[in-house]
Amino acid sequence: MAATSPGTGSRLAILGVGAVGRSVAELASEYGHEVVALSDSRGAAIDEDGLDVADALAEKDASGVVGPADPADALAADYDVLVEATPTTLGDAEPGFSHVRTALERDRNVVLANKGPVAERFGDVQALADDSAGSVRFEATVAGAIPAISTIEDVDPAHVTAVRGVLNGTANFILTRMAAEGLGYDHVLAEAQDMGVAEADPSFDVEGTDAALKCVILANVLSFGSAEDPSDAREFSLADATVDGIRDIPGNALELAADDGRTIRLIGEANRDRVRVGPRLVSEGATLAVPGTQNIVQLETTHADRLNLSGRGAGGPETASAVLGDVGRLS
Amino acid sequence: MAATSPGTGSRLAILGVGAVGRSVAELASEYGHEVVALSDSRGAAIDEDGLDVADALAEKDASGVVGPADPADALAADYDVLVEATPTTLGDAEPGFSHVRTALERDRNVVLANKGPVAERFGDVQALADDSAGSVRFEATVAGAIPAISTIEDVDPAHVTAVRGVLNGTANFILTRMAAEGLGYDHVLAEAQDMGVAEADPSFDVEGTDAALKCVILANVLSFGSAEDPSDAREFSLADATVDGIRDIPGNALELAADDGRTIRLIGEANRDRVRVGPRLVSEGATLAVPGTQNIVQLETTHADRLNLSGRGAGGPETASAVLGDVGRLS
Repeated sequence: MAATSPGTGSRLAILGVGAVGRSVAELASEYGHEVVALSDSRGAAIDEDGLDVADALAEKDASGVVGPADPADALAADYDVLVEATPTTLGDAEPGFSHVRTALERDRNVVLANKGPVAERFGDVQALADDSAGSVRFEATVAGAIPAISTIEDVDPAHVTAVRGVLNGTANFILTRMAAEGLGYDHVLAEAQDMGVAEADPSFDVEGTDAALKCVILANVLSFGSAEDPSDAREFSLADATVDGIRDIPGNALELAADDGRTIRLIGEANRDRVRVGPRLVSEGATLAVPGTQNIVQLETTHADRLNLSGRGAGGPETASAVLGDVGRLS
Repeated sequence: MAATSPGTGSRLAILGVGAVGRSVAELASEYGHEVVALSDSRGAAIDEDGLDVADALAEKDASGVVGPADPADALAADYDVLVEATPTTLGDAEPGFSHVRTALERDRNVVLANKGPVAERFGDVQALADDSAGSVRFEATVAGAIPAISTIEDVDPAHVTAVRGVLNGTANFILTRMAAEGLGYDHVLAEAQDMGVAEADPSFDVEGTDAALKCVILANVLSFGSAEDPSDAREFSLADATVDGIRDIPGNALELAADDGRTIRLIGEANRDRVRVGPRLVSEGATLAVPGTQNIVQLETTHADRLNLSGRGAGGPETASAVLGDVGRLS
């Protein structure tokens, strides 16, 4: 009957031992799965009978390398699902794209946390998946723990006319704090960096690039998901997005907005015709005005009006739960 | 690849020609499905080659009966999916429960909009589904268009520790209006009845029964969804719920709450141990304080903290989209 526990576990090969890869490895057994390979850029731990994840991560912490094997051996291991959690790269989306291609050519499944392949080369990934017995899923690439992609699948992409939302927690945190405390951008950015909410180089987040990649992925889902023939679908990449970040918001703009009962948030929007990200005025109490590092995805649907999905965006365990949710959907 | 259009259409037999049954019949072809039978309490329209839905609904509007056939013939028709949209009944949940049993004994699928079978006899429905080649889905029984059940399935019921929310739009509308306008309960109820937001007999909504049934269904999903052995799972029914409605909220309670930046909403909560519905104080800006007739479902999860899903609860097209979403998930 519907809503009962999923089936048997899968053998996972995890590429990437950053926050997401690490959390997926740590949580895998709780979800009933086995990790047979775990690799970073310099080494790999491989055990076809299932790794001791704690040992491998301790090795990573101690030496900087997760294991003695060649990273390429992880791609060649006997796994059911490749979890691609290496850093997002733009343009040719390499080496992530090649990892996806290798797995699909071996008729294995792929779960992406890496946005590159589905933001920059969606059509190529689709074509490889069509020729493979394996599938590609990518819930973790958009809005972390929030099941945005699977909800769009559920209501059917053809019935979703647009998606908008707050998709970058760092930018949203900064704007929330600036408005709440009347502090300047540089001050709040420094605070965010101290807290680990913003990176040492925050460009990817504050320039809107991260939000734009997520919107591009959503536009591709709407476009390819409703096309009769995938080869007719319009393909989006980062180059198609109109992107403005939060660095150039005038000093007194938030104060002026507040006088009018409004605030400013970095909002991304995607439909079948365009993708854009930029600061927007929203009512202080608006559904889109989620606090701090939270994310929200708002779907406009043909028969059910607007659906709002909000919660934690980024984070190791949060994103890992999205990855492991995808692994479960593949079964 | 994930997020592409679903497969071939299904043959539907729809029981019930109220707002939901009517909308499902009207929208079926848009979703790629065929209606082979449509019945109300007094008659049925049946055509194994696919009904003319507009004709049948016109007949219903003109004569009060949807067709010349016996309603029992609809249950005996050659369908893939039985859509059970007859009025919710409590206790033995008849005749809805028997409709479910008949379909499952014929190894057909069932999609419920009728809450009775899964609120009052979840264990019995589970047992019938376990013995059948058919499945039972029931997204439309909780929070209309909001994909609450399928999101819980996605993140896995074992990873959801609790569910809470605003699950009755009528009660929420009344409380929202009382707070916004400083008007009394009787005045706002009359207004809601004029607008068609409340029924002539509003008890089911304002006493919290409707919200409680939905919470009972959610508790059953959490309980049966995480049990190793379904026969060990605790089963909930309406009798297990602690329910308080909105009729007895003191006249000045909303005013007092507002002085403190808060308001009062009818909140339902479900976990594996208990179900309760009652008026609660919430901050005016709280995520749970959705406006008007909207619903919100808040999931507490083990690894992804809190997930919020909000949007339109009730309504013909909204609930029909949940039914048709379930039909698609069966394929």
